[in-house]
Amino acid sequence: MNYTLVFHILGLILRVEAVLMLPAAVIGIATRGGDGSAFLLAAGITLAVGQALVMLPAKNVKMQARDGFAAVALSWIFLSLFGALPYVFSGVLPNYADAVFETVSGFTTTGASVLTFIEGQPLGVLFWRAQTQWMGGVGVLVLALALVPRLGEGSVYLMRAESPGPIKSKLTPKVGDTAKILYSIYIGLTVGEVLCLRLAGMPWFDAVIHAFTTISTGGFSVKNASIAAYESLIIEWIIIIFMFLSGINFALLFFAVRRNFQAVFHSEELRSYTFMTLIASGLILADRAVHTAQAVTFQTVTDSVFQVVTLMTTTGYMTYDYVLWPTFSQVVLILVMFAGGCAGSTAGGIKQIRVVLLMKNLRREVQRILHPRLVTTIRSDGDRVEESTLSGITLFFFAYILLLLTGTLVVAWDDVGFTSAFTASLTCISNVGPAFGSLGPTSNFAALSNVSKVFLSLNMLLGRLEIMPLLLLLFPSLWKKR
Amino acid sequence: MNYTLVFHILGLILRVEAVLMLPAAVIGIATRGGDGSAFLLAAGITLAVGQALVMLPAKNVKMQARDGFAAVALSWIFLSLFGALPYVFSGVLPNYADAVFETVSGFTTTGASVLTFIEGQPLGVLFWRAQTQWMGGVGVLVLALALVPRLGEGSVYLMRAESPGPIKSKLTPKVGDTAKILYSIYIGLTVGEVLCLRLAGMPWFDAVIHAFTTISTGGFSVKNASIAAYESLIIEWIIIIFMFLSGINFALLFFAVRRNFQAVFHSEELRSYTFMTLIASGLILADRAVHTAQAVTFQTVTDSVFQVVTLMTTTGYMTYDYVLWPTFSQVVLILVMFAGGCAGSTAGGIKQIRVVLLMKNLRREVQRILHPRLVTTIRSDGDRVEESTLSGITLFFFAYILLLLTGTLVVAWDDVGFTSAFTASLTCISNVGPAFGSLGPTSNFAALSNVSKVFLSLNMLLGRLEIMPLLLLLFPSLWKKR
Repeated sequence: MNYTLVFHILGLILRVEAVLMLPAAVIGIATRGGDGSAFLLAAGITLAVGQALVMLPAKNVKMQARDGFAAVALSWIFLSLFGALPYVFSGVLPNYADAVFETVSGFTTTGASVLTFIEGQPLGVLFWRAQTQWMGGVGVLVLALALVPRLGEGSVYLMRAESPGPIKSKLTPKVGDTAKILYSIYIGLTVGEVLCLRLAGMPWFDAVIHAFTTISTGGFSVKNASIAAYESLIIEWIIIIFMFLSGINFALLFFAVRRNFQAVFHSEELRSYTFMTLIASGLILADRAVHTAQAVTFQTVTDSVFQVVTLMTTTGYMTYDYVLWPTFSQVVLILVMFAGGCAGSTAGGIKQIRVVLLMKNLRREVQRILHPRLVTTIRSDGDRVEESTLSGITLFFFAYILLLLTGTLVVAWDDVGFTSAFTASLTCISNVGPAFGSLGPTSNFAALSNVSKVFLSLNMLLGRLEIMPLLLLLFPSLWKKR
Repeated sequence: MNYTLVFHILGLILRVEAVLMLPAAVIGIATRGGDGSAFLLAAGITLAVGQALVMLPAKNVKMQARDGFAAVALSWIFLSLFGALPYVFSGVLPNYADAVFETVSGFTTTGASVLTFIEGQPLGVLFWRAQTQWMGGVGVLVLALALVPRLGEGSVYLMRAESPGPIKSKLTPKVGDTAKILYSIYIGLTVGEVLCLRLAGMPWFDAVIHAFTTISTGGFSVKNASIAAYESLIIEWIIIIFMFLSGINFALLFFAVRRNFQAVFHSEELRSYTFMTLIASGLILADRAVHTAQAVTFQTVTDSVFQVVTLMTTTGYMTYDYVLWPTFSQVVLILVMFAGGCAGSTAGGIKQIRVVLLMKNLRREVQRILHPRLVTTIRSDGDRVEESTLSGITLFFFAYILLLLTGTLVVAWDDVGFTSAFTASLTCISNVGPAFGSLGPTSNFAALSNVSKVFLSLNMLLGRLEIMPLLLLLFPSLWKKR
């Protein structure tokens, strides 16, 4: 690893984080919540460490893939360790493991929380909590790159390691330009949702917070009862639509803005995503009608679609305590949590494109028995997919399940029952938020042990960075100085 | 598909099955349980259909891979459909879906049962139930091949489709000879266990039944309380040892008999299998000591090791209701059910060799980031593993999880809770037997709907035949006449 280069990047990132703590500080001071000074102190420490790292002597050497991956993995860990400071300093989460869990849950846009009461917390802290999700949505490093484009061509490795999905679409030749397009869409969606929510009657502060955490598919709310607190079907449908949009590949949204609808409608991933949303909602409606004799009304349709979209886009808001639904509906929701949204969106999970390609690959494997000598290539939206990409995806799937089961084992030590342990691990690696069983949407993760919280934090980071960059840190040869 | 050839094989198999029903008929008549006539009637029907299929005009054409796979898949389905007849005719399981479930559970050596009371059932039926497991253990088709070796070289496709594991070891150049060696070991182990159990005080009938269902890693018992009924630590340890041996690759057992201990001790799969057994037992002992304050005694060591070995070898006996253990111990048991025993044994599950190769493959994938241009091959016991084998294994893993989750969804419709639905599907595809939650070892599968029973039967067959042969049946082009 090129230590001087990686330290330099870490320093840049921490400086950006320090600056981004200031809005929360301003809100804290303005609302006299007592948390303003906590943010100023945290920002000061973060800035000092960041500045020290930046000022270390840096050699001008070319960045390699390993450096990019290591820089991204370490940046996310450092961001979380420093981003946790305001929670501790303000006294909202005095246990540092709790504060790190909440921060990782924010940056990874998971939305799992250890806060028992949300209403009544200082507004600066609530703003910072939502803002970490908004920052984590498209990627803090991409943001930093857009602001500080001095890393040049090597920065493609950073973006590759941080952006979700197996196939990277570069909209423009320059990384910085692509980042700016993505951010324009991101900001446009956010502003649009703020306005819609305000028009539907939500207060300004709440509208901004929920727009931050919808577009990033994060799911933090300012209400204990999440979106259910507003008791408004209009607000629920606004949020359904913006969650759904945020789970679509941003490149497709860009094409849609450019009126290139052919590219949009021919996307196999978008079709799979839409199809899965409709099927899952229909199955849940059928299950509720049969097993709880609940007639299909506009209210039950809204409940069902909301819970499917919020879990499939890995947002994790709540308008209905789905743990009360029959087993079948719960399993449908668990399955959409595996799949997640589209690659190149802010959603987590395995991603629709991987599911599509896994199915095509399995189909080909069986067909090989029928036609042993036939060599067939697999295509996605008409383009040939490399064999190395395909084998990478199947191994990614294995790693995903392996980490899911490992997390289940760790949380199981807290003796919470299999359903809770399994879905807690799943909700974290898929960056969703709420789990099932005793860790359902009306509960939270506060009761778990510190060991579980640290491991689930790792699972959230593994899910957000799509596993490989963090696994790389386990290899001793990475740490050799170059 | 070559219909005449496949029908011919189906006919041969059914004729063998009819003959193998006779011992149960003799026992039924001798013990006056009223089930003798049921077996004679079932044998008569099976023989008639088999004979009719054999007598169809057959063209002498070369067997291809697709024919072998189709013949195996269809044979197992037909065997189960006809093997279920004695249960129906004797009135033990008048519902045909129940009878098929019990038969598939037998042939696939799963051991899941829909019988509510086992003691008091006619002895012929109990013998047939255990015998289906013993027949299914190494493979009914391999047995038929050893008896009827007229299929010649094409029969290698049959054996490949039926024998578990990604890498086939041919001990001798001729398929028939390999089958005979395997059967010698199989019979040797069975006779050995009968004698040990008899010496330990078990009645002859019980000893034979349990030897049948241990060596096949099946798990059917003649007692409602399974092995716990004998209240004998000696019997438990005899069974632990024979279960463990039956989960080892029979090729290794053959080498051990030939005193080629180097091959045995160098087997990575055997090391992984042994290591996992020890670690899992240790973790459960630690969990029980911490969470239930149960001191580590010879009794608790026996309980823990027995439950680990019985679930990991996918046998499924019971000496302790592990559903009463803390969550962590239950998750450990669930994880060993995923892994299963060694390839080339009678055990089910993903198989240890696949787990080893998946881990190696994942390791290489991460290392590729460090050394992008380095081409490395993966070795197993020193031999290079083909890339197509590796990609086949990762796709197998995907298919396994996909079918596990699909089964979970189907069973969930019965509203049994997530834990029960998930572990019911897992226990069936891994050919274990008991599940968790409300379907634990002291319960059974009788309460499930017919849809669940049929789907779980399919999952048992998919697990036993390692998925691909049965998935092949879904492809329309297979069914085109050649």
